[in-house]
Amino acid sequence: MEGKKANIPVTTVYRLSYYCRALLESGTSSFISSRDLAKLTGFSDALVRRDLSYFGRFGIPGRGYPVSEVREKISKLLGIDREWKVALIGQGNLGRAVLRYKGFEKQGFQIVAVFDSDPGKIGKSRSGIEIQDINQLEKEVKKAQIEMAIIAVPADGAQGVIGRVVGSGIKAILNFAPTKVEVPNSVTLVNIDFTVELERLSCVVTRLGLAFCFFWCVL
Amino acid sequence: MEGKKANIPVTTVYRLSYYCRALLESGTSSFISSRDLAKLTGFSDALVRRDLSYFGRFGIPGRGYPVSEVREKISKLLGIDREWKVALIGQGNLGRAVLRYKGFEKQGFQIVAVFDSDPGKIGKSRSGIEIQDINQLEKEVKKAQIEMAIIAVPADGAQGVIGRVVGSGIKAILNFAPTKVEVPNSVTLVNIDFTVELERLSCVVTRLGLAFCFFWCVL
Repeated sequence: MEGKKANIPVTTVYRLSYYCRALLESGTSSFISSRDLAKLTGFSDALVRRDLSYFGRFGIPGRGYPVSEVREKISKLLGIDREWKVALIGQGNLGRAVLRYKGFEKQGFQIVAVFDSDPGKIGKSRSGIEIQDINQLEKEVKKAQIEMAIIAVPADGAQGVIGRVVGSGIKAILNFAPTKVEVPNSVTLVNIDFTVELERLSCVVTRLGLAFCFFWCVL
Repeated sequence: MEGKKANIPVTTVYRLSYYCRALLESGTSSFISSRDLAKLTGFSDALVRRDLSYFGRFGIPGRGYPVSEVREKISKLLGIDREWKVALIGQGNLGRAVLRYKGFEKQGFQIVAVFDSDPGKIGKSRSGIEIQDINQLEKEVKKAQIEMAIIAVPADGAQGVIGRVVGSGIKAILNFAPTKVEVPNSVTLVNIDFTVELERLSCVVTRLGLAFCFFWCVL
């Protein structure tokens, strides 16, 4: 495994997320076959086997993979074998949707602080968390030991906000603002751009045949 | 190009989306070098050249790529050289954020109908569109010739809604509901799962070295 770590492609990591979640939700214990894991997640049997082979050989012929070990290995790889304290910046519609999103806590991501720059929102409480002034960001990141930020602000304010986030010492940013933003090399940035996802969809539907679809559907 | 179509990997298609957008936003005309396109998008020079080579050789040494041709080729591949009529289902916080999202129309995706099942929302107007009863879906899809749907409903209602969408004849679905949903093979489904994206982030930040980051950052 060690030698292969650097070569796990992004598509595999996505699928590992889904395997881990499916095992958690299914309540399956002891052993699971690659066929059953394929059924639970919608991927092919062969893909499941190939993906799990990144962890070396650990399935037992005739029985399958030990569930707790699969979950443990994937969780460790994904960095979800621990808690992450997350700051959410922006309390427009998208920010509210993110705050109410049920999936994060189950996987160890805990939104512990929420920020906005609108005086009409600051001080109000949502989902049990008080919205703080964005000017408090640096202080709060230090105090609450926050390591991740989710950016849900409009495009034109995004680079400024991300500059502050980086300045506060946060090294991992999930950005929803639909614009190109820059971060230093020491910071990891993942962008979710809704238009790019729609383009991905139109690309498959319009132009490409089944062989291409295969690439697609494995995500 | 024709022979290669089926083999364009998903990561390349993502980058093509970004090239196309960057060219549109930059206002660059006539020619652009791979280096300048790399600067605009944050990808490497070599990656830009490799990605554009999928379209065959069409750059001019010393001058670069003809901008209008790059845009045209990418738009055609992504299926954004035309208009797409889109239905949005769900008017909670996320649905509202999607409806107000500025990026869609620029790339040819037009939200023409919005649905919800909440009697308190049905009949109200948002962003100039009247929220319709989900029971009107099939009729409206036919009438307005809708080809795509964006699903922004809670997880527990998602499969039911997607069943209706599929039944209405729509073949392309972008799903935000954080749950496993099933569609027939004839329908293309793209899922955006916020937790998977956070896991992608934590994976890079915690465990993997620079070589892996490279895979990551090309998305």
